[in-house]
Amino acid sequence: MSAKIRLYVEQPLGQGQSVPLTREQAHYLFGVMRQSVGAQIALFNGRDGEWLAEVSEAGKRGGVLSCLQQTKPLQLPPDLWFLFAPIKKARTDFIVEKAAEMGAARILPMQTEYTNSERIRQDRLQAHAVEAAEQCGGTFVPEVAELQKLDRVLDSWPQDRQLMFCNEAEVGSALRLAAQEKGQPWAILIGPEGGFSDQERARLTALPFSHVVSLGPRILRADTAAVAALTMWQQALGDWF
Amino acid sequence: MSAKIRLYVEQPLGQGQSVPLTREQAHYLFGVMRQSVGAQIALFNGRDGEWLAEVSEAGKRGGVLSCLQQTKPLQLPPDLWFLFAPIKKARTDFIVEKAAEMGAARILPMQTEYTNSERIRQDRLQAHAVEAAEQCGGTFVPEVAELQKLDRVLDSWPQDRQLMFCNEAEVGSALRLAAQEKGQPWAILIGPEGGFSDQERARLTALPFSHVVSLGPRILRADTAAVAALTMWQQALGDWF
Repeated sequence: MSAKIRLYVEQPLGQGQSVPLTREQAHYLFGVMRQSVGAQIALFNGRDGEWLAEVSEAGKRGGVLSCLQQTKPLQLPPDLWFLFAPIKKARTDFIVEKAAEMGAARILPMQTEYTNSERIRQDRLQAHAVEAAEQCGGTFVPEVAELQKLDRVLDSWPQDRQLMFCNEAEVGSALRLAAQEKGQPWAILIGPEGGFSDQERARLTALPFSHVVSLGPRILRADTAAVAALTMWQQALGDWF
Repeated sequence: MSAKIRLYVEQPLGQGQSVPLTREQAHYLFGVMRQSVGAQIALFNGRDGEWLAEVSEAGKRGGVLSCLQQTKPLQLPPDLWFLFAPIKKARTDFIVEKAAEMGAARILPMQTEYTNSERIRQDRLQAHAVEAAEQCGGTFVPEVAELQKLDRVLDSWPQDRQLMFCNEAEVGSALRLAAQEKGQPWAILIGPEGGFSDQERARLTALPFSHVVSLGPRILRADTAAVAALTMWQQALGDWF
């Protein structure tokens, strides 16, 4: 009873619920994916789990799906924020995709001292997070926040949220995540390609909620570091085991 | 005494050694990177560690570098093979880049039952591995093998090499890598986008040297799975700690 195409929608999902499609969704389903009336599609909206739905109306500019039955309950990721400094376009897209795929609950682009980007396309990055959720079978889409200054975010940091600070200068150190922090709110912070400044590094290391972590003896690119850090965290403290 | 530009060369490196450049290398160094006589460049060849070298001749079609001093000893990665099924072009490039960056010793593209690619551009993938080593500060470049059939490779598998089989059907299982296999030759196997066939899965699970591993409760794309699996292995059995 599982459908191959998964679509994220904004509308409520439930028994007998009709879901009107936007023009873009209709174009994708009927134009690109060649679906028609009677086709079965999986829907999720980040709140009501996954529903199997059937196309009841199909047109060039719109269409309607009817919910048949719930196929997955809502599965929320752990309470994990993912903070990163945007880099070149394609790799930033990739980082957002990977953070969504690996189960981050919120994605926060950070402006650090050595970040080149002054702005991001928040809507485009959010669309990448949606697409990643559609692909990976998730029922939740992490919110991508607007670009914020790292210093400001640290100024108003919630004191109960632990921070895994991936320090590329920490090469070869053996600090591991401690399992006693499991179940708490967490955040992962990945630096920009140029690394953190000495001042940032000093502040980040001194914070009481900060856990400095090494990502091995080789220098990793920011996008690799993103997946590696999420793997370490999910294995030690998340929902992987 | 560290140079920002790192270049992989084929020639021997050593005290007083002169290194002639190919036309492509000269174009890159003098054309693209705007270097000239007297500039200092880091060289490595996968055998002699990293050497600081100075440009002694610079031309449009060639040039010569002179080795000044060794700046890093040769650092070999753990004896880890990385087996994967090629997917779409950009993501295959990415997987090779990541495997090199994360410290695989050999990269082996595999043709599985559900692999779409019938061939790969081995030379282009090798160039990606070289570029990744240049970027990540490594002194070693993993060899990228030609595309081989998974079944054949398993037929002649070296019996002392353990295999970490990343089974996407193993969702939620808690099998971890056992530290007692540390120091042995290993391989990681990542499946194609369509997953392994039932027959492949049965064979891979039954092999005496096979260790079935789960990469968490979400479906990961092949490129994400590559970095996640390498992180798990390096943390448990490799040179990360």
